[in-house]
Amino acid sequence: MASPAETAAMARAVELAARGTATALPNPVVGCVLLAPDGATVGEGWHERPGGPHAEVHALRAAGGRARGATAVVTLEPCAHTGRTGPCTEALLAAGVARVVVAVRDPWATAAGGAERLRAAGVDVEVGPGAAAAERVNAPWLLSVRLGRPYVTWKTAATLDGRSAAEDGTSRWITGEAARADVHRLRGEVDTVLAGVGTVLADDPQLTVRPAGGGAPGRPPLRVVADTHGRTPAGARVRDGAAPTWVATAREVATGPDGHLDPAALLAALHARGRVHVLLEGGPRLAGAFVREGLVDRVVAYVAPALLGSGAAALGDAGVRGIAGAHRLRLEDVARVGEDVRLTAVPLRPAPGHPRADGG
Amino acid sequence: MASPAETAAMARAVELAARGTATALPNPVVGCVLLAPDGATVGEGWHERPGGPHAEVHALRAAGGRARGATAVVTLEPCAHTGRTGPCTEALLAAGVARVVVAVRDPWATAAGGAERLRAAGVDVEVGPGAAAAERVNAPWLLSVRLGRPYVTWKTAATLDGRSAAEDGTSRWITGEAARADVHRLRGEVDTVLAGVGTVLADDPQLTVRPAGGGAPGRPPLRVVADTHGRTPAGARVRDGAAPTWVATAREVATGPDGHLDPAALLAALHARGRVHVLLEGGPRLAGAFVREGLVDRVVAYVAPALLGSGAAALGDAGVRGIAGAHRLRLEDVARVGEDVRLTAVPLRPAPGHPRADGG
Repeated sequence: MASPAETAAMARAVELAARGTATALPNPVVGCVLLAPDGATVGEGWHERPGGPHAEVHALRAAGGRARGATAVVTLEPCAHTGRTGPCTEALLAAGVARVVVAVRDPWATAAGGAERLRAAGVDVEVGPGAAAAERVNAPWLLSVRLGRPYVTWKTAATLDGRSAAEDGTSRWITGEAARADVHRLRGEVDTVLAGVGTVLADDPQLTVRPAGGGAPGRPPLRVVADTHGRTPAGARVRDGAAPTWVATAREVATGPDGHLDPAALLAALHARGRVHVLLEGGPRLAGAFVREGLVDRVVAYVAPALLGSGAAALGDAGVRGIAGAHRLRLEDVARVGEDVRLTAVPLRPAPGHPRADGG
Repeated sequence: MASPAETAAMARAVELAARGTATALPNPVVGCVLLAPDGATVGEGWHERPGGPHAEVHALRAAGGRARGATAVVTLEPCAHTGRTGPCTEALLAAGVARVVVAVRDPWATAAGGAERLRAAGVDVEVGPGAAAAERVNAPWLLSVRLGRPYVTWKTAATLDGRSAAEDGTSRWITGEAARADVHRLRGEVDTVLAGVGTVLADDPQLTVRPAGGGAPGRPPLRVVADTHGRTPAGARVRDGAAPTWVATAREVATGPDGHLDPAALLAALHARGRVHVLLEGGPRLAGAFVREGLVDRVVAYVAPALLGSGAAALGDAGVRGIAGAHRLRLEDVARVGEDVRLTAVPLRPAPGHPRADGG
């Protein structure tokens, strides 16, 4: 049983982990708190960037000699392998840590086994406390390891009546400045931004993170255009030098029965390229295909208090005929963003291998 | 200048006024607080039902002899005419009230002039403090008097992608039980519920307030079907004995250029029947016509965390071609209702004669 101090420390460790959201990819976000036997915090750390020290190492450095006999409270099982940095298990043992509380087991076979290694060395290890929140903060990375595909966040912006463009195709701007800035924040938290060629032809978006310093420094998200027939113009803004771009066509990615790129095949290709978190930005047809295939893991919907009554729907055919077949979600968050509202929701029925954050 | 005690009393008076929301129609909601010269509250009252005592009279009764020299803080100008009850101005004068603070002038010519009558009798009268909140709580009644038509609340329920039914027409249920119960609460706050014949033919709704006993006791809202060609079946549930029903056809209401009942003409007919607040429940064509004509005064949108990708849109053609012509609203409230979200919004550009509640 985790003590009250350990439970509080795990909540803090989750907060620390979240600080890496925009920078840790393709690594997991991890937070670590070291507690002295009297419950006092003697060190904190989080994983900031690939190649940088792991959360445990940051916390051990902060604690110094006070790590001896301490309890390490960590959101993800300490790694037992040597990658760009040495194994955290060995660092914890060398520092004389007596107990380790882990929220979530590491699903990555290469690095797993940390709990066993620590136990074999005589450390008291407890797994499970705080798992719900630790799953949530690390959801993209965990899903990408468990399912072998990137996590997909579908971002949509529409009016109160569900339109993402007016009848004449104009859509600038449906949402206000604050919501649009929030989209740039979202882009800064992913390693891949995906749009359909229809969106590129209609709106010529740049799909970059603004302001330029947002996201992981020096590693802007890969811009991907789902473009079955290679129609992306040579002069499209998405092809400018601001960030890397992949125009995915049927020459590289398998097509589905509808003749368009198969969403699962596209995600497999992105996984092969080491991509962990895709922000799907539309259009409606592409989004519908992803929803239909159960390949949307989170929906971030910006709803503008405006009515159009006609124009393109935000979501195209998602394979639903009757209300019983609706893709049901669970609201995770509702927030006002400037004059608009942002709704965040996750599928009610998790995909196989995607344990629910709330343990349900 | 209203004193701090008077400002606080006005906020309280608005709260009291709100208690009459479900029962006062077709009368205004009004709240009144009586303050002794030392700032102590000596009486409170609100207008509960037509034919019942006005807010001021309730407050005076509660105060008894302590009303002498007191300040009456009231959300709406005291009436100066004898209707089913005597004029409030005379009651205030008879009780010896020394000062009256009024938030909003009475726009109803028949009852207006209270402030002048009181001043003529030597009472200190101040008009304006708390006007924004007092306008908001009484918005339906004030608009109906100012514009000579009922206030229209459009209620819509749709998925996150703006669909109010699936492709095969099924729509039960898009929203959850809590949201549906909230719709009954809404119906209990209006005197008229309006739906198009398409909705009646598709869903056969009863359009009543459940549980029975909600809303104004013994005065269920009038059920109105906008039914240009008289297609409402004799056995439709909307024609049962649970509440009065008016099937409005082209024989009684003028039609517009599109051959359907003209929304303004329909509202005029309802105004002539003494109706103050209409809850418009769809379907999409009827709602679109009302939005197009600028005849929606408030939108209450229940958004279900679900995706359909096809099926009927919540709102039909509203006369908008480009994004610049979008009907822009301002969010008044965002609330989670069970597993759904309720968004309440009002037009950003008020209709003529409809001063903004926030004084803008």
